[in-house]
Amino acid sequence: MSRTLAILGATGLVGRTMLSVLEQRGFPLDDLRLLASPRGAGRTLSFRGREIAVQAVGPESFVGVDIALFAVKNPIARQWAPVAQAAGAVVIDNSSAYRYDPAVPLIVPEVNGDILDTRPTLIANPNCSAAPLVVALGALRGMATLERLIVSTYQSVSGAGSDALEELDRGIRGGLESAPPRRTDGSPAFAFNCIPHIDRFEDNGYTREEMKVVWEVRKILGTSELPVTVTAVRVPVRVGHAAAVHAIFDAPITPQAARERWAASPGIEVVDDPAQARYPMPLDVEGRDPVLIGRVRTDLCDRNGLAFFVVSDNLRKGAALNAVQIAERLPRAPAVVR
Amino acid sequence: MSRTLAILGATGLVGRTMLSVLEQRGFPLDDLRLLASPRGAGRTLSFRGREIAVQAVGPESFVGVDIALFAVKNPIARQWAPVAQAAGAVVIDNSSAYRYDPAVPLIVPEVNGDILDTRPTLIANPNCSAAPLVVALGALRGMATLERLIVSTYQSVSGAGSDALEELDRGIRGGLESAPPRRTDGSPAFAFNCIPHIDRFEDNGYTREEMKVVWEVRKILGTSELPVTVTAVRVPVRVGHAAAVHAIFDAPITPQAARERWAASPGIEVVDDPAQARYPMPLDVEGRDPVLIGRVRTDLCDRNGLAFFVVSDNLRKGAALNAVQIAERLPRAPAVVR
Repeated sequence: MSRTLAILGATGLVGRTMLSVLEQRGFPLDDLRLLASPRGAGRTLSFRGREIAVQAVGPESFVGVDIALFAVKNPIARQWAPVAQAAGAVVIDNSSAYRYDPAVPLIVPEVNGDILDTRPTLIANPNCSAAPLVVALGALRGMATLERLIVSTYQSVSGAGSDALEELDRGIRGGLESAPPRRTDGSPAFAFNCIPHIDRFEDNGYTREEMKVVWEVRKILGTSELPVTVTAVRVPVRVGHAAAVHAIFDAPITPQAARERWAASPGIEVVDDPAQARYPMPLDVEGRDPVLIGRVRTDLCDRNGLAFFVVSDNLRKGAALNAVQIAERLPRAPAVVR
Repeated sequence: MSRTLAILGATGLVGRTMLSVLEQRGFPLDDLRLLASPRGAGRTLSFRGREIAVQAVGPESFVGVDIALFAVKNPIARQWAPVAQAAGAVVIDNSSAYRYDPAVPLIVPEVNGDILDTRPTLIANPNCSAAPLVVALGALRGMATLERLIVSTYQSVSGAGSDALEELDRGIRGGLESAPPRRTDGSPAFAFNCIPHIDRFEDNGYTREEMKVVWEVRKILGTSELPVTVTAVRVPVRVGHAAAVHAIFDAPITPQAARERWAASPGIEVVDDPAQARYPMPLDVEGRDPVLIGRVRTDLCDRNGLAFFVVSDNLRKGAALNAVQIAERLPRAPAVVR
C-alpha cells in the first residue's frame, strides 16, 4: 500500500520542522507533496536527499493524499481542511481552528492516542504549551487524581514564527549598545524583556494563549471541569517553551514516585539532579524530541501538591513532532476504502 | 543635627544604585562615606557633582556614621554589622545574613515601616523578588485575608551582580551566530535561556531563592503560617524582575477593586489596559521606582483567587531604593544618644 503525505504550510517554521521530523523518524511514505500559499510556492525544500518544489495550494492539491499535515493559520486551515477531507485525506491540523470543536479529537498520542482508533478524518494538534504539559500530567494518571493546576509559562519567540525570530535578533543586536528597539509593528521588543501577552486578549482578562492551555489540558486529559489557571509569558529565548507547574492531586505523589513514573513513560526525560545542577532548560531542548521534566518537589504547604518544571522544543513536541506522531499512530486504512 | 551615611559595598551594582537613589531623592546628609573591600577601594564615585574616594573598610570605618547601608555578601555583612552597630550606626543590610533572625526586623516601609519606631539598630532589607511582591500584597490588606500564594518569577541577570551581566552580554554576542557559550565557571549560559536555579539548592528540593521569598513574604506580612509556593527562574533580561502571582483570599477581591486600591497605594503603578496592550514589562522599569502591577484578573476557577503580574527594578525596589526608603523612615535619633 503506497502512502502519500502532504504538508500545507511547508515553508514556515513548523512546516520545515515537520519535514525534518519526517526525515529523522524515517516516516514511511511514497510521495511527499509540499504546499504553501502562492507567496511561499516556487521554493524548493530538501527531503531525503532530493529537492521538492513547493506548490501553491489549490483545489486539486489533496487528490491522492492519504495524510495532510497542516501548519498554517486558522483561516487557511478552515479553508482547506474540508477540501482535503473531501479528497480522502486525513487532516492533522496544527492551527487552533478546530481544537475546541467537540466533534474533532485533540490528540497527544501518549495520552489519548486511542481515540485515533475511531478513524477520525480531521484531528487537531495541540498548542505548543499544552502538549508538553499533558504529556507530563497524563503520565501520572492512576497515581492520584489531578484536582487543581496552576501554570506559568516561559515561551520562546519561535512560537510566534520566523518573522518573530528575526525581530528578536534585531532587538538583541540593537539592545547590545542601548535600549532594544520596538518591533516593526510598534509592539514591545522581545529582546531583554518578558511580555505577558501571547495571542489576543479575551474579555475575561486572560489571553487566548492562556485559555488555550486551559481548554486543551481539559480536553486532552478528559477532565472537562479541571480548575486550571495559566499565565503565559514570552521570554527572549529562541526555541524551547518552559512551564512552572503547580499541580494539586487528591492524594500525595512523592517526587521520587513521579520521577520513576515519568522516567518509564514514552516521550519524557527526567532531568532532575539538583546536586549536580541538572534541571531542564530551553537551551537543552532545541531539535530534541523528549519533554524534559525536573525541579520536582513536594508543595511545602500541601502534601497533595507537586511542583515541577517542564521544558520542550515548542516546534517539535509542541507542534511538528506531535503531528507526525499522530500520523504514525493512525490506523492504516484498508486498501478498499479508496 | 548633622547626619553621616556610609555605604559598604559601594562599588557593586546595588551599592552604585544606592548612590544614584540617594542623589535622586535628595536624601538629607552631611557626609557620605563610601566603603568597599580592599579590591574595590581606591576608585572614586561621583555623588552630587563631586568625586568621593572609596575607602577600604576597616575597624574605624563606622566611627561617626549614623546610618550604614550594606550592599555586600552575607559573610562580609556578618563581619561588619556588629562593628558598625558598636560604633553607633544603624545598619540597613541588603544581604540575607540577618533576614531570618527573629530579633532583626525585615522591612518594606509601605508594609511594615511602623516597626522602625522601635528604633532597631540592625534592619534587614528583603530579597529582590520578595519586596515588590509584599508591596502588592500588603496594599490589599483589609480587603480580604490572603490564604494561599503561588508565585513563578522571571528574574533578571542583574540580580546576580555585574559580573553576571557581563556573562549575559558575552553569551548574547556568542549566541548571535551559534549556541551561546557557557559561563566562565562552566554553568549554563544566561543568554537565550531560562534557568530554574537561583542561589543554592536546599535539601527540600527548593532553591534558597525560592525559600527566601516564602520566608520573607511571611515575615514582612506578619503571616507566619501563610502557604507560599515559589518557582524562581533566571531569564535573559538585564534589569527588572517579574512575577506571575496567583493569590487566593478568604473572599473575592474584584480586579477593579484591587486596581483601585493599588492605584491609591504608595510605590505602586497600575499598568493594566489589555485593550491598549498595556501591561508591566521589565524593559519599562529600569531606573524607575514604582512596582508595576497589571494583568489583573479573577481566577476563573476560584472566585476568591486573583492572578496578576508584578514587575519592578530589582536594583531599586528590590534592593537600593527600599534600603534608602528604610533610612528615610528611620526616626531621627535624639542628639543626646551620642
